Amino acid sequence: MATNKKRGLQTVSFINPPVISSWASIVGPKEGEGPWVNDFDWVLENINFGENTFEKAESKMIREVVKLALSKIELKPVDAELLLAGDLLNGLPSSNYAARELQVPFFGLYGSSSTMAEAIINGSMLVDGGFYERIISATGSHHYSVEKQFGHSAEQSRKTLSTSQWLTTGAGAVVLESSGIGPRITCATIGKVVDMEQYDINDLGSAISPAAADTIRMHFSDTNRSPNYYDLILTGDLGKFGTVLIKEFFIKYGITPEPNFSDCGVLMYRDKQDIEAGGTGCGCSAAMFCGPIMRKVSGGEINKLLFVGTGALISKEAYMQGETIPGIAHAIAIENDLFTTV
Amino acid sequence: MATNKKRGLQTVSFINPPVISSWASIVGPKEGEGPWVNDFDWVLENINFGENTFEKAESKMIREVVKLALSKIELKPVDAELLLAGDLLNGLPSSNYAARELQVPFFGLYGSSSTMAEAIINGSMLVDGGFYERIISATGSHHYSVEKQFGHSAEQSRKTLSTSQWLTTGAGAVVLESSGIGPRITCATIGKVVDMEQYDINDLGSAISPAAADTIRMHFSDTNRSPNYYDLILTGDLGKFGTVLIKEFFIKYGITPEPNFSDCGVLMYRDKQDIEAGGTGCGCSAAMFCGPIMRKVSGGEINKLLFVGTGALISKEAYMQGETIPGIAHAIAIENDLFTTV
Repeated sequence: MATNKKRGLQTVSFINPPVISSWASIVGPKEGEGPWVNDFDWVLENINFGENTFEKAESKMIREVVKLALSKIELKPVDAELLLAGDLLNGLPSSNYAARELQVPFFGLYGSSSTMAEAIINGSMLVDGGFYERIISATGSHHYSVEKQFGHSAEQSRKTLSTSQWLTTGAGAVVLESSGIGPRITCATIGKVVDMEQYDINDLGSAISPAAADTIRMHFSDTNRSPNYYDLILTGDLGKFGTVLIKEFFIKYGITPEPNFSDCGVLMYRDKQDIEAGGTGCGCSAAMFCGPIMRKVSGGEINKLLFVGTGALISKEAYMQGETIPGIAHAIAIENDLFTTV
Repeated sequence: MATNKKRGLQTVSFINPPVISSWASIVGPKEGEGPWVNDFDWVLENINFGENTFEKAESKMIREVVKLALSKIELKPVDAELLLAGDLLNGLPSSNYAARELQVPFFGLYGSSSTMAEAIINGSMLVDGGFYERIISATGSHHYSVEKQFGHSAEQSRKTLSTSQWLTTGAGAVVLESSGIGPRITCATIGKVVDMEQYDINDLGSAISPAAADTIRMHFSDTNRSPNYYDLILTGDLGKFGTVLIKEFFIKYGITPEPNFSDCGVLMYRDKQDIEAGGTGCGCSAAMFCGPIMRKVSGGEINKLLFVGTGALISKEAYMQGETIPGIAHAIAIENDLFTTV
């Protein structure tokens, strides 16, 4: 049997690194006002996306971003062998109803904002494991459906604090294939749940940065790589305050990733958009990764990327019962296959 | 590259079929009054499980069932390389907090009541794919935490109808290993979301039986097996009404699985327990599979089992918006390795 992983490590390596053969992104109107309007495939003109509820709009985003990623390589949903998808709503209705329309065998995943990374890593193992030739991994979030679920809105308290992050309206999908040309997923580090006893729902970035730091530390330890191996180390949605905090952990762990470190939550919006600490939600890193970032990877501007999906494992019910907010993070190494693209 | 799956099929086969090296089950007091009290590892004396909230009790069930499955083969959480787990609560708090305590790299999954099957199939692919030597798959549900989330209780309308199913308090975990002695997972069929436009929240069994029938049909088609290949074909939680309905689909599809067909939801309780149509929830099939059923498999009473996890993909929000209740089902072939156990 092939052994892709040594015991005791959190990192898996791929013998036949899966190819990201296509990708697509959809964002909402506000995200379209950010710096990356030309790098997303689809900027919604209307936040309702032609639906009569925000939940249906979110499901439509996931469904359409999957179809879009496949259509770019002239494929249809029937050409995908498995769909791995999740969202932030209770019971994953957005993913379930998307899977119903797409009619692809389906596994639902939940990793909060880390769902895109979880879906890509899980899918990569299933492809490299020999079970599938073509998988599609997707996720998405809609600002108003998620805010409604958590019982607060843009007008309420959470938004007004400087540490608060804006729940991004966005979706992303990647097609993972066992062969072909394109950026490849060479290894991945699966995170543990890390809890530094954060209680502040208005500062999720600080709640998840210890998990991000822990996974990045384990990635370098397992792979014997150093931060400068990568052109970019990109976390999911630590936001401005989480980004400050993670640098303290980097110092503690002896990691010096600057200047090649950035964060999707920080990158998503312009300062003048009054977004406070940046974007959050599974659609934030999904749309950034499947939009501006993959564009830079495919264009050769970034040849070695470490994408670190981060999730605040927040439950409204548990939070109301005084539980802390732990975090989780999963890291994916994406590398241009320079030999085949030259 | 190993090819474990032919294009166009929903069924994956395992080259080195993963071994179920251990399993464990925990159920609540009511489930302990059912016919299987001696087949579960742990019957809770108190529905609170020593916690001050039902949500914490649910998380403790998942945590303890994982530890119990590992302890049976003299292992600890640190000996597992990956935890695949999910639950029915919004944001998977029970699984997240269990993973925090267990400190095992973690992927959250959501398949409603099919979560145990999803976690076993996903885990089996990761083990046979060569990424892990030992994974633990787990899920659980607590009657009162889930009922609270859905906004009804045992005293309210849902329970009073003859088609209603009782949300089971239960949890199950299996340890999957790349080598060793024990029942093996030989192949699995991953389902699509099937929607027959059911709207009746009081008859979830009927909502999911079309999905179960579809996956079973695909399993036999993909594997060229017939129902009599198996000693038992066991669905998750169709309950009494869903079991009646699936037989109509079997006739339609030309499948004749009787008399070797049963359902965890039907099996869980005694008739005199006033449970109406049977058990439901991810803890129902998880505890039945990881308790009475695996006991029969390990004892040689069942040598070839097709376990079909079934999930009603219900979202309270979507339901209130008039959406239908689709279903999903995943089938797992578990076979005693007669050559090595003789």
